[in-house]
Amino acid sequence: MRAARFHGQKDIRIDEIDTPTAGPGQVLVDVAWCGICGTDLHEYLEGPIFVPQPGHPHPVTGEEPPVTMGHEFSGVVAELGEGVTDLEAGDHVVIEPYIIREDVDTGPESKTYHLSQDMNFIGLGGHGGGLGEKVAVDRRWVHRISKDVPLDQAALIEPLTVGFHAVERSGVKAGDVALIGGAGPIGLLTAAVLKAQGVTVVMSELSELRRKKAVESGVADHTFDPRETDVVEEVKKLTDGRGADVAFECTSVQVVLDTLMDAVKPRGVIVIVSIWGQRSDFDIHKLVMKEIDLRGTIAYVNNHPETIELVESGKIDLAPFITGKIGLEGLVDEGFDTLIHRNETAVKILVSPSGKGL
Amino acid sequence: MRAARFHGQKDIRIDEIDTPTAGPGQVLVDVAWCGICGTDLHEYLEGPIFVPQPGHPHPVTGEEPPVTMGHEFSGVVAELGEGVTDLEAGDHVVIEPYIIREDVDTGPESKTYHLSQDMNFIGLGGHGGGLGEKVAVDRRWVHRISKDVPLDQAALIEPLTVGFHAVERSGVKAGDVALIGGAGPIGLLTAAVLKAQGVTVVMSELSELRRKKAVESGVADHTFDPRETDVVEEVKKLTDGRGADVAFECTSVQVVLDTLMDAVKPRGVIVIVSIWGQRSDFDIHKLVMKEIDLRGTIAYVNNHPETIELVESGKIDLAPFITGKIGLEGLVDEGFDTLIHRNETAVKILVSPSGKGL
Ligand SMILES: [Zn+2]
Ligand SMILES: [Zn+2]
Repeated sequence: MRAARFHGQKDIRIDEIDTPTAGPGQVLVDVAWCGICGTDLHEYLEGPIFVPQPGHPHPVTGEEPPVTMGHEFSGVVAELGEGVTDLEAGDHVVIEPYIIREDVDTGPESKTYHLSQDMNFIGLGGHGGGLGEKVAVDRRWVHRISKDVPLDQAALIEPLTVGFHAVERSGVKAGDVALIGGAGPIGLLTAAVLKAQGVTVVMSELSELRRKKAVESGVADHTFDPRETDVVEEVKKLTDGRGADVAFECTSVQVVLDTLMDAVKPRGVIVIVSIWGQRSDFDIHKLVMKEIDLRGTIAYVNNHPETIELVESGKIDLAPFITGKIGLEGLVDEGFDTLIHRNETAVKILVSPSGKGL
Repeated sequence: MRAARFHGQKDIRIDEIDTPTAGPGQVLVDVAWCGICGTDLHEYLEGPIFVPQPGHPHPVTGEEPPVTMGHEFSGVVAELGEGVTDLEAGDHVVIEPYIIREDVDTGPESKTYHLSQDMNFIGLGGHGGGLGEKVAVDRRWVHRISKDVPLDQAALIEPLTVGFHAVERSGVKAGDVALIGGAGPIGLLTAAVLKAQGVTVVMSELSELRRKKAVESGVADHTFDPRETDVVEEVKKLTDGRGADVAFECTSVQVVLDTLMDAVKPRGVIVIVSIWGQRSDFDIHKLVMKEIDLRGTIAYVNNHPETIELVESGKIDLAPFITGKIGLEGLVDEGFDTLIHRNETAVKILVSPSGKGL
């Protein structure tokens, strides 16, 4: 079968590799669609980051480059390994793409397995990936979804779950006002979750096209261009002078974080959703004087069931966020290139590894 | 009467001023003891900070320099203003030294009056202070204490309440392990509250004398010199490799904050208790990857009753933290000077404005 594999920085190749089979306790998934993620771009441009260094195989998977990429994917069950009895061939599924040590509790009550030592992702640290035609995944990480959800939209459930987890971390409740800094893919999907939970969503974003997407997709109640508008003032107007209840930093840009610090109410919560490549020049005195709560969030932990429910029930429509569909051969030239150079219009570009969906 | 008043930077004078009287709803307090605080030193060396700028009277008090200093004090009720019927002359009291706008809810359920606009402190922003012989205070800010608590120890209830509020902000529970960076007055008093609540207390502190005080006063279970010991390793040893449940930053030093970031468990909470004069070079990526919760805390809000209860019940003994007693005339030469130049041995120096306690 064909798979896009990371060989080194700026060296991703479409390779012909052996088709995997479902081992005991595993599910073989015929990949329908796989989204390209900012993390994939980082690996391509600056990696290996999550991908193991050559000569340093990942302690759980034992793999090093080349590794198959792709962690945001949907598919159809092709084959069940020994002992897997609660799924059927033909079921539609999405993957929670974790690589977790065996000694870690990944049960339904755990709220920390994603923070465990050696945590990595299918599609980065080994164990195949959604940018291959088929992938064998441990049953634990396979979530069945209704066939009423189109498989292309289902591929967005993984990044949507990142947003769900960030929202959960914030402690926001219905009726609150949330400010999101940045209307890129994660900002938009975080907004979608907030909106579905009855929160008023305000977004600050430089790009006019992204602001338009936020409004047209129905996830933002108000959008502002921070070059033209005093976002802090606008948020205060919308909250009787109080300030936003919660804020989400989705840009890794210092001035955006500073704006969020000014825009939240005393005792407000700011969740850092983006990955910062540099330390922050952080206004810790303001954190103290306003008793702000700054919380990190990474990926998700036991959040897939609730996120899937939001999509299955129709509370969230993921269709507006699919802005491109390509085959495996277009991954670098069409996919990565568009996201790097024309990323104002692109939200999620989906890849069909087999080409069947195109 | 005599009062120590801030006239300008490095210009604090012992002035003869009019003795106040209790207006309607007020209580006239005969000050017994008043502690000198780091905030007072900052005003003396670098002020005015909380003290209003000359020509810019505080919007609530209408006062500008000179203002009477001192916000950590105990005393005896001397006179009750019109309408105050729930106290008696001779009662022992401590003061919650707030200056708050009249339109702010300061009721027993409020958790935010300390974050309201124009908030300031008696002894800094006007309304007299504990470094005068007598002070007239609105009933709302007067808390009666048992006569079984010596009045000198009672003067430490104000900074102890700062520690109580910081501990409350952390969400720590009995059986948890807390790491405190810095064993100065606030670090020690925060430790005292933690210890009283059944938390294991680990302290990192450069000064041998301060570490000794932390152990001898019974508030620290373990103390480490971070130059000699890998504090992160030691905390991991004490927590089966997990990391501290909560941490308290009481130094405003970057390397201490970095140590706390490494020493807390995933999903751990770090409370910033100290006042930082500069922005932090903050490792925001670590906050994200460990899902750390960084929380600001300032002063207190409706925390005096519970803090007083800890002292009255004997769960906290404040005696070990009183390291000096002086008269008003020694304030600058003996008090400030000791704290500035020999602050390793000094925790709290108490001033008797009338000289009666000496
Ligand atoms: Zn992703
Ligand atoms: Zn103080």
